[in-house]
Order: sequence, then structure tokens, then C-alpha cells
Amino acid sequence: MDNRAIGFMDSGVGGLTVVREALRQLPLESIYFIGDQARLPYGPRSSTEVRKFSEQMATFLMKKDIKMLVIACNTATAAALEDLKEKLPIPVIGVISPGSRAALKVTRNRRIGVIGTEGTIKSKAYETAILSKDSSVQVYSLACPKFVPLVESNEYDSPVAKKVVAETLRYFENKDVDTLVLGCTHYPLLRPIIQDVMGSQVKLIDSGAETIGTVSALLDYFDIAKNSNGEKSKDAYYTTAAPKSFNQIASQWLQIKVAAQKARIDQLHLEVN
Amino acid sequence: MDNRAIGFMDSGVGGLTVVREALRQLPLESIYFIGDQARLPYGPRSSTEVRKFSEQMATFLMKKDIKMLVIACNTATAAALEDLKEKLPIPVIGVISPGSRAALKVTRNRRIGVIGTEGTIKSKAYETAILSKDSSVQVYSLACPKFVPLVESNEYDSPVAKKVVAETLRYFENKDVDTLVLGCTHYPLLRPIIQDVMGSQVKLIDSGAETIGTVSALLDYFDIAKNSNGEKSKDAYYTTAAPKSFNQIASQWLQIKVAAQKARIDQLHLEVN
Repeated sequence: MDNRAIGFMDSGVGGLTVVREALRQLPLESIYFIGDQARLPYGPRSSTEVRKFSEQMATFLMKKDIKMLVIACNTATAAALEDLKEKLPIPVIGVISPGSRAALKVTRNRRIGVIGTEGTIKSKAYETAILSKDSSVQVYSLACPKFVPLVESNEYDSPVAKKVVAETLRYFENKDVDTLVLGCTHYPLLRPIIQDVMGSQVKLIDSGAETIGTVSALLDYFDIAKNSNGEKSKDAYYTTAAPKSFNQIASQWLQIKVAAQKARIDQLHLEVN
Repeated sequence: MDNRAIGFMDSGVGGLTVVREALRQLPLESIYFIGDQARLPYGPRSSTEVRKFSEQMATFLMKKDIKMLVIACNTATAAALEDLKEKLPIPVIGVISPGSRAALKVTRNRRIGVIGTEGTIKSKAYETAILSKDSSVQVYSLACPKFVPLVESNEYDSPVAKKVVAETLRYFENKDVDTLVLGCTHYPLLRPIIQDVMGSQVKLIDSGAETIGTVSALLDYFDIAKNSNGEKSKDAYYTTAAPKSFNQIASQWLQIKVAAQKARIDQLHLEVN
């Protein structure tokens, strides 16, 4: 039993797709979220840099006294999960293993597509995770560097988004995948468009949503779920940029009023570049 | 990476319903299974006794050098999970938390039925697990002491089974549950009959099958999944009784030829009473 909050971190608003699932599946748990909007996108950055930024975000949340850390960002999971698991005294969970397991459970023809940022795709983290469990599967990976900016600029259901998604995913036309992993927590906001382009026969795996199943299992395993009698402390949202656009997307996506606090760069000793 | 086997233990053949799911979802992993048929059913025994027997089974598997222990028995999970988690140097997983989580995820009307052995129902383990996550749910629990003997005597699709199941489950007639937890790993063998009696609108939760999702998550979390390049060591099945009936049910249920070895009581320092 542990009544402290669960920490979630992301490069921006993408991690909110994971939070949405947490609000649904774990209504009693308190949530602290930080999005590093001042330095997004993480996708094109080097893994060394992403690891450093991730460590800063994790330190920020640790100071708020969290009981578990969810790296609600695929790029950061690929770059920093092992590092943070080793360094932090609390359970740390990434989004790549849960997404990989879900894809393997769902595929019938053993042909799996993975879309993600350049960082995630370059890391081959999904391929490695999937093939380590079943080497007979075919994995087709595609970096989609244009997707995160669409979401962060709140254009995720615009005609531009439709055009960009259709053009990008043309890569899968002759790949015959029956399962596509949304290997970036921003992508579920583009889900209707992606589903439309891929066709209804392709199952989309939302890695972030799958991750909450793992979070829930680990809360039980370590016996740190919240006591149902304890009062729920208020959820808190932070962003390293101006909160206005964050609040807009967050309130829309989570269907609750979100008033994020600015996590000031100078207070956090974060460096912007 | 850890190429050792995962240990599964049960009072009898029920745990094989969990093994079947492991063979499906984790085809690379090696499995050691022991069923304590000489002393079943566990259901009517005291929790002190079940805890003692569980410890003996766990010791037997630990001597075979397993990397993880799955208590593939609800009665033993209720009585011995905490004890074994504390004593063993490897991850120990029970079937009750995964089943509870799955039920909460599936229910729409928040009325959940639980069936299990006398020991499991008396322990209130499911009720406690479910209500600790959502105290607004109604849980209706029923002990079904006649079900395990039906399965262990290989009568699980006989007319007698149909009659017994229908009579027993009459309890739920006016309870309006939309979800029923099969809170005993033997019950999935009675699943078609149970579904028929409850009606197709009631979702049945197979706790054992749900447990493999947690096993898979923990293999990843602790980084002890099997290396896909390593050769799979042979699965091994043990029973404390004569293997004949065990092999018959196991081969039928798992759709593979099973030749269990007798785990001799005197060698194991197990006491039969």
C-alpha cells in the first residue's frame, strides 16, 4: 500500500494518451505528469541527449515524491529506460515492452508494422523486443518525423494531418501487415486517420494504453497500489513551455479541465537548446 | 536474459489451464509443472495446511532451478502467495490479482461474480483485491466444492457435470452479474458448461490465462525472459499421484503428448493425509 502518486513523463503532450488510460483503469491512483515541450521533439535528438533530458525530468518527478515512474514516451524509453531503472529506487516502466507483447498477442499473419520517431526506429528497440520473443515474425519499421509536430501544434485532425499520414504510411502498401504498433505516445491522437489509411483489417496497438496493464500488474506485484480508503491527492500537470497550448490539448484529450503548471527551466536546472 | 524454466504448481491438473496459455503466449519459455494430486482437493483444507503443502511444492521446483514461480492455483495463492514471495529469492506470481484486474476491466454494470473453492472463497481474496481497486463494485462470491472433483475424475464434459454446474450456479440467477471470475484453475475445463448456464451475455474471466500476461510483463521487467537463440530445454511435468490420469487429461487439454513423472512423496518429504 502506497498512496503516493505515479509519475509520467514525456517530451510533450503525447504521454497524455497514457495518462488517459491510467485515469480509466486506475481511477484511484494520483498522477503527476511532466511534458518537456520546451525541448521537443525528442525524435531527432541523439540518444545521449534524450537520456540526459529524461534524467532531468525523472529528477523533477522524484522530488515530488512519486512511487513509480512511467516513461510515457517511446523515444525516451528506447534511450533511457535501462539507465533510469538502474539509477532510481522505484519501479520504472517504459512503453516498448508492453507494446511489443500486445502486438505479438494480436498478430495472426506474423507481419507487424511499427511506426515511431527517428530516435525510436533507429534504436531498433521494438524489433529487438519483438524478435527476442518470436524470431519468426517479420517486423517493418518506419520513422514518421512529421507526426509529432502535427499533434503538438494541435492539428491532429486537420486535412493537413490526413495528407501527411496518408503519404507517410504509403510505405506499408505492399507489406501485408495485420498489426501496426503506434510506437510513439503522440500517435493515438492521430489514430482515426491512421486507421482509415491502413484499413480496418489492420489492428492498431496503442503502446501507451497497453503500458497501463503493466503498471497495474506491478502496483500489485510490489504491493504499492493506492489504498481505496485513502483520499486521492490532486493530479498535477507540468510543462516546461507555456501551458496554454498544453492545457488546450490536455483538456480536449482527457475530457477534464487541465491547468498545467509551468516547470521553470531555471528552477529545474534544465538546459534548452 | 535467463534461460531457466518457469515453475508452475497446482493441487492437480487445474494449473494446466495456466500452462496452456503459457505455451501459447510464451512459446520460447521452458515449463516445469507439479500437480499435488495425491493430496487434492486443496479447497476444503485449512489455509495453514495449504500453505505448508505449497511450500513443499515450491521447494521441489526450486531444486529444479526455476527462475520464476507461478502459483497456478487460487486456493494456494490465497493461502501462500505472501509467504512464498517473502521466502523465495525469485519472483512469485499468483492468479488472484491478474483475475481481479481483468474482471474490473471487463465489467460494465460493476456487478462481478466469483466462483472458487471453499478455501479461496473463505479467504475473501478476490473480494479484497477487487474492492481495494474500486469500492463501488458489487462482488458475489460462491464456493463450488463439487467442481474440482468433476475435473480431476475426467468427467468435466459429462452429463453429471452439466447437472452439477447448473444446480450450483443457480445462486447467480437474480444477481445480474455481467462478469464471472473462474477463481479456480480447474474451472476453465468446465468453461463451455459454465458459459451455457450463465448465458452468453456474461463474460467469463479465466484468472489463469490472465496471469500469463503478468508473467510476461515481469519477465520483461526483471529482464529474465529466455534468449530466443538459446535452445529450449524440455518441459517437465510432475504429479505426486500415479501419472496415468494426469497424462490423459494433460494430453487432451494441452494437445501435446504429456508423460508426467511421479514426484515421489518420500523423496519430497511430503506428507499425505
